Amino acid sequence: MDTSLKIAVAGLGTVGAGTVKLLQAHSGVLERRCGRAIKVVAVSARDRTKDRGVSLDGYEYFDDAVAMARNADADVVVELIGGANGIARQVVEAALENGRHVVTANKALIATHGAALARTAERADVMLSYEAAVAGGIPVIKVLREGLAGNTISRVYGILNGTCNYILSRMRDEGLEFSDVLADAQKLGYAEADPGVDIDGDDAAHKLAILAAVAFGREVDFPSVHVEGIRHISLQDIRFAEELGFRIKLLGIASETENGIEQRVHPCMVPLAAPIAGVEGVFNAVVAEGDSIDSLVLEGRGAGEGPTSSAVAADLVDIARSVRIPTFGVPVDQLKPSLPVPMAGHSGAYYIRLMVVDRPGVFADVAAVLRDNNVSMESILQHGHEPGEAVPVILTLHETGEAQAMKTIGAIAALDGVVERPVMIRIENL
Amino acid sequence: MDTSLKIAVAGLGTVGAGTVKLLQAHSGVLERRCGRAIKVVAVSARDRTKDRGVSLDGYEYFDDAVAMARNADADVVVELIGGANGIARQVVEAALENGRHVVTANKALIATHGAALARTAERADVMLSYEAAVAGGIPVIKVLREGLAGNTISRVYGILNGTCNYILSRMRDEGLEFSDVLADAQKLGYAEADPGVDIDGDDAAHKLAILAAVAFGREVDFPSVHVEGIRHISLQDIRFAEELGFRIKLLGIASETENGIEQRVHPCMVPLAAPIAGVEGVFNAVVAEGDSIDSLVLEGRGAGEGPTSSAVAADLVDIARSVRIPTFGVPVDQLKPSLPVPMAGHSGAYYIRLMVVDRPGVFADVAAVLRDNNVSMESILQHGHEPGEAVPVILTLHETGEAQAMKTIGAIAALDGVVERPVMIRIENL
Repeated sequence: MDTSLKIAVAGLGTVGAGTVKLLQAHSGVLERRCGRAIKVVAVSARDRTKDRGVSLDGYEYFDDAVAMARNADADVVVELIGGANGIARQVVEAALENGRHVVTANKALIATHGAALARTAERADVMLSYEAAVAGGIPVIKVLREGLAGNTISRVYGILNGTCNYILSRMRDEGLEFSDVLADAQKLGYAEADPGVDIDGDDAAHKLAILAAVAFGREVDFPSVHVEGIRHISLQDIRFAEELGFRIKLLGIASETENGIEQRVHPCMVPLAAPIAGVEGVFNAVVAEGDSIDSLVLEGRGAGEGPTSSAVAADLVDIARSVRIPTFGVPVDQLKPSLPVPMAGHSGAYYIRLMVVDRPGVFADVAAVLRDNNVSMESILQHGHEPGEAVPVILTLHETGEAQAMKTIGAIAALDGVVERPVMIRIENL
Repeated sequence: MDTSLKIAVAGLGTVGAGTVKLLQAHSGVLERRCGRAIKVVAVSARDRTKDRGVSLDGYEYFDDAVAMARNADADVVVELIGGANGIARQVVEAALENGRHVVTANKALIATHGAALARTAERADVMLSYEAAVAGGIPVIKVLREGLAGNTISRVYGILNGTCNYILSRMRDEGLEFSDVLADAQKLGYAEADPGVDIDGDDAAHKLAILAAVAFGREVDFPSVHVEGIRHISLQDIRFAEELGFRIKLLGIASETENGIEQRVHPCMVPLAAPIAGVEGVFNAVVAEGDSIDSLVLEGRGAGEGPTSSAVAADLVDIARSVRIPTFGVPVDQLKPSLPVPMAGHSGAYYIRLMVVDRPGVFADVAAVLRDNNVSMESILQHGHEPGEAVPVILTLHETGEAQAMKTIGAIAALDGVVERPVMIRIENL
């Protein structure tokens, strides 16, 4: 009897072809680890003839990935097409409805339709696995859902987008402005031609929504994630951050408080001593805080052929070993509602950079706005300047309600002596 | 029908009592996560009446842990007694032979008798789980055996003993000598009254042997681990390390090369920029290097009630979820032989501190020894000194064979102008 686990791969881009390569190269050891072989039996891609550096001989070829998900002689469909809707979603639905396990790297799909798909998977008694969707080579889904299953997780946060971390790292290291590094990153292939999904924070937000669902046992709630990107981060803010003992990172942070679930993606100033401050370049990192473990830091490569294929392979090994765990760690009907806390309900510390023209009374005006809004300042920083030019003035605010902080910044922005829109970056005392 | 997973706990020290507390406090969420309850039904400890801050009402009490392992109405025996032999081993053997799963935190037991016990577990078709045996709150066994199952692991290394890391961190931070920090750590409870198992490296060696077995799919081979502790590390070596851009850490390092498996535990100089250099105090860290993921860093608390109980609970959750994975990742009869490379076959870079009396010809003698042994120097460091006193001279050697380096150091030690035994610390370019 053929006990092998039969795989159909939908999408043969970098990760799809990489997965096929990995399964071929490691077939012997995978069979020893699983007690059965893992065999690709079918593939689907747009262009059948393209050279992908891997032999597809002996695999059934489908032009139509949905037809493959329905009809291939496969136990598992690996979806590596991408996108929250369209063909990827159809492939996953067709596979689950036909009683096939699904392994996917599709963060947008899981963040958007995760609960509905998990319900379909449960009905069919199959796995819906997505380790590759979050932080590639870091097995964070497994760690949260299994390794930390004895904990109540109160917070999970991390550097979830390698492109942003690469850009911020190079700005600091090389003294370059955002747009210059972005252009170069695009040339080098570290950023997409259309970089918005990365640099505006949506990619990190998809991943954060998934992490929050698994960490807190709640329905995935992508629309409630507060998202800000890194386009407005300038070299001078990076320099001021260093001066204040911080480093600027785009973080995704999800926390469960007595008021509900906070999910936010935005640039943060983190203390230089925080483990996450030292994570540079394209690396990702995730920190989980639980009642028993205190905190656990995971750092590794978040994207690319190798790390993502590794995550897909781990999901396949689990399935081959007959591991069966609910999609988000508990059965769908036992997931708690998402209970989002709006960003206005957040409170924290703030860095504010004003550009101020040097004339009498401006400081008094700023001080009056702070007083009138009942906001207290932690520190103020201004260096020497040329007469008549606008100069940067840095304020940092103590723990303050977000709504109050925004109102205060708005009032400061409206002052006569303040030119340019103030830059605000939240300070996280991790 | 009662579907609950029934647990018997052998040993009610800090971790045993903590595990019972955790299972009581998290019973609701654990039941949701597993689809069944996890219930303690029996306990065994030396002193029945001792107050452990947790209610034992309703649990069957055994004075004899081995009798409990044989006779309790339990699906799983949790062994938290400790020690490679004696009662702990008897408990585990009795449990496995009676068809009960075993969860243990006992690194000495698994490092010493892992293969035989795994064979017994396989015959009985039960799990032998030991996440708590290595790096407490860091789920590194799960990560290696499952999360990285798609990789060929070439090296795994880490800070595996929190006591040593705590001592080295405080020596550096506070400018104290080893013996002073050790005495204080003993007062504070961070070091045992008999500290040998920690500071002489045996604890780390047990953990490393386990990690190597899982990472490489080979028979656990504790006797082949080369072990050196940290008693000989002095404050001046820590200061010289800083000056050279290194930090001193006690590392366990296991690597698979074309010659076989290297396993070694000893103080290392690691570059300040290595992620592991920043892991301070009682924290542990493990780095795994695989062909697909490149490298993955895990950092967290390695010991103590919470982290260790968390690991025990995760193993219980796996068992409750019917996860069944071979003890070392592949069935015992498919584990490869350990194939140890003796330490003399190692090659690397070396830091050597000589105490030299200042008189003509000493340097020439040292240089001649290096030349005669065909060893090339990377750098030499000597600061000003008082006439007539012995002064430290630091040599660092390029990549050199261990046997050749040891022979060279021996020859230098025998020189007339060299007083005290030279201190050698290996430099690891991680």
